[in-house]
Amino acid sequence: MSLSSKAGQPDIGHEIIERLHILAQHTEQEGMMTRTYLTPAHRGAAGQIAAWMRDAGMTVRRDAVGNVIGRYEGTEAGKPVLMTGSHFDTVRNGGIYDGLLGILLPITCIAKWHRQGLRFPFPLEVAAFSEEEGVRFKAPMLGSRAIAGTFEQRVLSHTDNQGITMRDAMKAADLNPAQIASAAAARDSIAAFVEVHIEQGPVLLNEDLPLGVVTAIAGATRYMLELEGLAGHAGTVPMHMRQDAAMAAAEFALFVERRCSNRPDLVGTIGQWTVPNGATNVIPGRAILSLDVRAGDDAERLAATADITLELEHICARRKVRSTLTKTYETPSAVCADWLQEGWHASLARNGCAVRSLPSGAGHDAMAIAAVAPIAMLFVRCGNGGISHHPTETMTMEDAALASNVFMDFVEHFDTLSASRKAT
Amino acid sequence: MSLSSKAGQPDIGHEIIERLHILAQHTEQEGMMTRTYLTPAHRGAAGQIAAWMRDAGMTVRRDAVGNVIGRYEGTEAGKPVLMTGSHFDTVRNGGIYDGLLGILLPITCIAKWHRQGLRFPFPLEVAAFSEEEGVRFKAPMLGSRAIAGTFEQRVLSHTDNQGITMRDAMKAADLNPAQIASAAAARDSIAAFVEVHIEQGPVLLNEDLPLGVVTAIAGATRYMLELEGLAGHAGTVPMHMRQDAAMAAAEFALFVERRCSNRPDLVGTIGQWTVPNGATNVIPGRAILSLDVRAGDDAERLAATADITLELEHICARRKVRSTLTKTYETPSAVCADWLQEGWHASLARNGCAVRSLPSGAGHDAMAIAAVAPIAMLFVRCGNGGISHHPTETMTMEDAALASNVFMDFVEHFDTLSASRKAT
Repeated sequence: MSLSSKAGQPDIGHEIIERLHILAQHTEQEGMMTRTYLTPAHRGAAGQIAAWMRDAGMTVRRDAVGNVIGRYEGTEAGKPVLMTGSHFDTVRNGGIYDGLLGILLPITCIAKWHRQGLRFPFPLEVAAFSEEEGVRFKAPMLGSRAIAGTFEQRVLSHTDNQGITMRDAMKAADLNPAQIASAAAARDSIAAFVEVHIEQGPVLLNEDLPLGVVTAIAGATRYMLELEGLAGHAGTVPMHMRQDAAMAAAEFALFVERRCSNRPDLVGTIGQWTVPNGATNVIPGRAILSLDVRAGDDAERLAATADITLELEHICARRKVRSTLTKTYETPSAVCADWLQEGWHASLARNGCAVRSLPSGAGHDAMAIAAVAPIAMLFVRCGNGGISHHPTETMTMEDAALASNVFMDFVEHFDTLSASRKAT
Repeated sequence: MSLSSKAGQPDIGHEIIERLHILAQHTEQEGMMTRTYLTPAHRGAAGQIAAWMRDAGMTVRRDAVGNVIGRYEGTEAGKPVLMTGSHFDTVRNGGIYDGLLGILLPITCIAKWHRQGLRFPFPLEVAAFSEEEGVRFKAPMLGSRAIAGTFEQRVLSHTDNQGITMRDAMKAADLNPAQIASAAAARDSIAAFVEVHIEQGPVLLNEDLPLGVVTAIAGATRYMLELEGLAGHAGTVPMHMRQDAAMAAAEFALFVERRCSNRPDLVGTIGQWTVPNGATNVIPGRAILSLDVRAGDDAERLAATADITLELEHICARRKVRSTLTKTYETPSAVCADWLQEGWHASLARNGCAVRSLPSGAGHDAMAIAAVAPIAMLFVRCGNGGISHHPTETMTMEDAALASNVFMDFVEHFDTLSASRKAT
């Protein structure tokens, strides 16, 4: 049944990379890859994805949160769906593969099956999730959470940098925030969710392996921290009398770095640093930071956030700076289903690939979908040192082709895999 | 001749404070005191100052850099001018007394003399300097430097946050950048420059003294620092593999703080902190900071900046972060003329005030004018812990009145003072 070969399919690899570049033209900033939730660039990308889905023989629906879902109908009625997909938003000035690979690779594979008139007993759906990165409204995974039925209504009141609420942004994009619940998948309607994604890290690259199977997705806690000291004139307030909010931020940041170092599974990042109205000759009175802590092991993460919170109090007491630490997001780690991991292992083996299992330090839509279906992920090697969320993020056409082979093999064997699991 | 009394003149104090509040209405942001060079708020303030100057019997000219200069003509031809004044721009979200007191206090005193028909042998000029803080174009003291003949042509190419060059902003405000040299004062045309200013620090407040005489203005060095590391995904790059530009910034900032502490005369401030395109889940690839180092003693300042520069190299080498440190401004300390300081001492004594001498940690327009004339400054007590460059900056009406008495006494005795100096 499979048309795949160990060397990969150059044509399909070429087509995937070409489409990734076409989609990259839908950006908010010329010369940069920036596509945040419900901007014109985002809506343009959704339209292009829907068009490609239709070309591939899928019926397409857009749900209340802006997910674009293509359905490739199965030959047997009533079977639960095999869902795949990823997100089509990006970080600011990010890469073109993150998320999009997991949408365009399956669409391109389905187009091939469609040309061959090949269908499976089960329906296959490609979910292009509208929002995963959390950039515009400081709340991630909006698309996959809506499908998982875990979308939190309170985030509708979040505002972007222009003060626009998510609720108003949705209405302006012809989405009905009151209908978000309708996007949730029915119980047991999804047999499995598998996500193909670039690794976004250096592990596969360093081991010279094109593909890897994810064991678990790290849990994460995110905070916004506001520090308030006292502004003052840079020339006249002696150092010992200062209540410099930014210096408290600096001390806090270095503690986070120190606390998260030398633990193999733990990372802590301060990605946003803002000193509002900062001027050369003014002692900073306020500072606003984000904090992101992740670990594959939940206990490891919680111990780190407890230590960080305590140290923040010490720093602020010593520096006479007030702090407001707000938890904006928290999610436990998500374990990938053993039987799906074994399915990937078999597909890799049939394609002559080494089987490498690894955890994912990055959050992915699969984490949210884990609430309603068993999940698994296939990682594709990331070039350039494993850099992601950056313009120099890259991967090869050969790896895209090989990942397509493995994905097609996985889908072509899914009915057997699923049946054998039920039998055990 | 003098109408002053030890208790101060309540009417004149009231009028000064009232005018400070009227002028505060010319702001870029409702509810905040922000007035940067050549904005509509700035031009509105210039117009109001000119109107008050005319009401006080002065002729008014606007020079090529936007300074508003009121001249109260003397009775004897050919005498050099006694110049006073300060700046009418502000920092972002600053106070309403900084700079403005040194403009509105003399105007209000001259208005009083004008009503009494009193003139002096010498001409008295009030210079309302258009730019001192360096906020909009990252170059301070534009107004006083133009009069001192030390305006640097290269700053005309500086851009503001919107990418507008200073040159274009000047043209849009009907100023001719090609004519800036014409603003320079002729050699020996200024007999002395005296500046009345709030202290912007806590020294006088702590000692319960309303007024102080400045001995010297601290020298300053300012830099912009750009750090460039490598952006990456917050979840997937292990801590030891990161090249986080903001963490390098944090370590640098804490070194600056440590190096400048425990030296009575030295301060170091990082007022601007920017992580461009910062996002919660992205390791910062770039960070941009300002650095401001000041000391009354030039050798102390230069030793500190040498150590800071060296430590920056160490931090960046260790963290694999590139740095670009650009010196944007440097000025040596400026010593106040002994004979003018003695003039202030005498005026304070005649008003029953204790004589307190102190250095100025803040830069002032007088620093620039020191290039062409002897300078001196009178500090007025700052309330609220000595806070300045902040909305809670304050001073009392009583102190304004007392400062007016002392200023009027100083001017009324200036011809004698000046003559006795020439005699020695």
